[in-house]
Amino acid sequence: MYTIGIDFGATFVKMGLVDDFGKVYFRRKIETVLSASRASLIDAIICNIRDIIEISGKSVSGIGIGVPGPVDSKKGVVHYFPNIKGWEGVRLKSILEKKLGLRVELDNDVNAMTLGEFVFGAGKNCNNLVCLTLGTGVGGGIIIDGKLYRGGSMCAGEIGHMPINETGPKCNCGGIACLERYIGNKYILERAKKTFGNNVTLEALTSLAKFGNKKAITIWSDVAQKLSVALTEVINLLNPDKIVIGGGVGKAGELILSPLRKQIKVRAMKDQAVHVKIIAAKLGADAGIIGASLLLKT
Amino acid sequence: MYTIGIDFGATFVKMGLVDDFGKVYFRRKIETVLSASRASLIDAIICNIRDIIEISGKSVSGIGIGVPGPVDSKKGVVHYFPNIKGWEGVRLKSILEKKLGLRVELDNDVNAMTLGEFVFGAGKNCNNLVCLTLGTGVGGGIIIDGKLYRGGSMCAGEIGHMPINETGPKCNCGGIACLERYIGNKYILERAKKTFGNNVTLEALTSLAKFGNKKAITIWSDVAQKLSVALTEVINLLNPDKIVIGGGVGKAGELILSPLRKQIKVRAMKDQAVHVKIIAAKLGADAGIIGASLLLKT
Repeated sequence: MYTIGIDFGATFVKMGLVDDFGKVYFRRKIETVLSASRASLIDAIICNIRDIIEISGKSVSGIGIGVPGPVDSKKGVVHYFPNIKGWEGVRLKSILEKKLGLRVELDNDVNAMTLGEFVFGAGKNCNNLVCLTLGTGVGGGIIIDGKLYRGGSMCAGEIGHMPINETGPKCNCGGIACLERYIGNKYILERAKKTFGNNVTLEALTSLAKFGNKKAITIWSDVAQKLSVALTEVINLLNPDKIVIGGGVGKAGELILSPLRKQIKVRAMKDQAVHVKIIAAKLGADAGIIGASLLLKT
Repeated sequence: MYTIGIDFGATFVKMGLVDDFGKVYFRRKIETVLSASRASLIDAIICNIRDIIEISGKSVSGIGIGVPGPVDSKKGVVHYFPNIKGWEGVRLKSILEKKLGLRVELDNDVNAMTLGEFVFGAGKNCNNLVCLTLGTGVGGGIIIDGKLYRGGSMCAGEIGHMPINETGPKCNCGGIACLERYIGNKYILERAKKTFGNNVTLEALTSLAKFGNKKAITIWSDVAQKLSVALTEVINLLNPDKIVIGGGVGKAGELILSPLRKQIKVRAMKDQAVHVKIIAAKLGADAGIIGASLLLKT
């Protein structure tokens, strides 16, 4: 059976046909023109879906879509997108279902990515999984007993907003000393600029560290230390089987993971620390498409 | 249908016959004589169970037992009891089943109490619940989608060992700046002794605060603040419907709950903070017996 997965981001909308084994065919990528109207973006998505179905000649059972903001996944309604204007309260599921005559399921992008890694990626073969994306924001998704856990009002998984100190910098969310306030992209780059005296990209910071630059290595291991406090919270509370880490900052890979694992051994409770595997995400650029397609199976 | 619930504590073993509505009959209380052998304590429990069954004349479907330490609840094996020697690796479920010819289910005391509050107490009528006990230790139990969540290696719920700072006092568990290290009984009493110049009990500290003593009020509101950091972690991660707080320290009631709710409004994410209800446990001294009896229904 085939489904269509849509990874709706603030920069691009990526989509593709996905088979039962998580393989992606007929990829499409549409720029998310922020100045364009909502209607025109929806039209572009619909036109590409129809096109994929026609060209592939496959029978498609439905469409899953992961979006960059909070949703009511039961009703298929977008609450709002923090980085795209004009999407408050949009009934995206019913709009697409009416136009396409196919079943549509909707969730936020991190939950979609979590499902993807759980079924086909680094999170395979476990029951209790926590998935993190490290980027501009720090997002989280939770699998409990093999099922996506969305929380009492569909807001679970906000690992980026778990405080790691009693006092500290104020976060955009209104909270105090949230993890994201220390290791969101922006704050890592600010620190790098201070350290090196000029603008440094995350890629450059990673390269520098890989070639042995001590200042760059220290920045990454400090990121790992902040992260280890929040993950100790997660590990002692949830006793997960695996923690999967992806996203832009996550590309620093072992530069973060290796000091992170050491810190977890020191900080987390012994049984929980021994049990959990902390690993990098595996699905890469396709994670969003594959994960979204799996929303039809939850 | 009737079951027997056993609340196995380090001070007393309390037991009783429990009906389908959570009412307790034929209560028994055995002192947990720490110097006595394990076998003699097990014999005392068995003799009282037989006695309850005989006197009540009821048909009993099984026995649930909540114990003061980590267990493998599937196999019914005690890993160890931190405060009672000689219980390492005891197959308590099969020992009791053989002697009594009845089904036996085993879990730790906090999970049992969580079940009790969920089914018959302050946690009724919700799907996602976090239960805390504030006492010598700070324990936690988690209900997800209406089911007790035990974690990947049955160690979930260690809210007392969620760190609330990156650096801080070392905890007995090996961790750094764990919640319990700030608000465990002992640390509250140490603080009270410093403040008042002599030993003060928790009950006295509560009375003082209730009669307007500002120093006592400050101690309780500081406890609430530490607790609010850990609960912000829990709330932003799990988006629970309710948080139920019980245990000895929990008896301070609104002295903790009222400043705690205010802090949560400031610290936690808005949607999650609005959704969650933070309330005192309701089942009191029977919570352990009632909760244990429910282990047969999970």
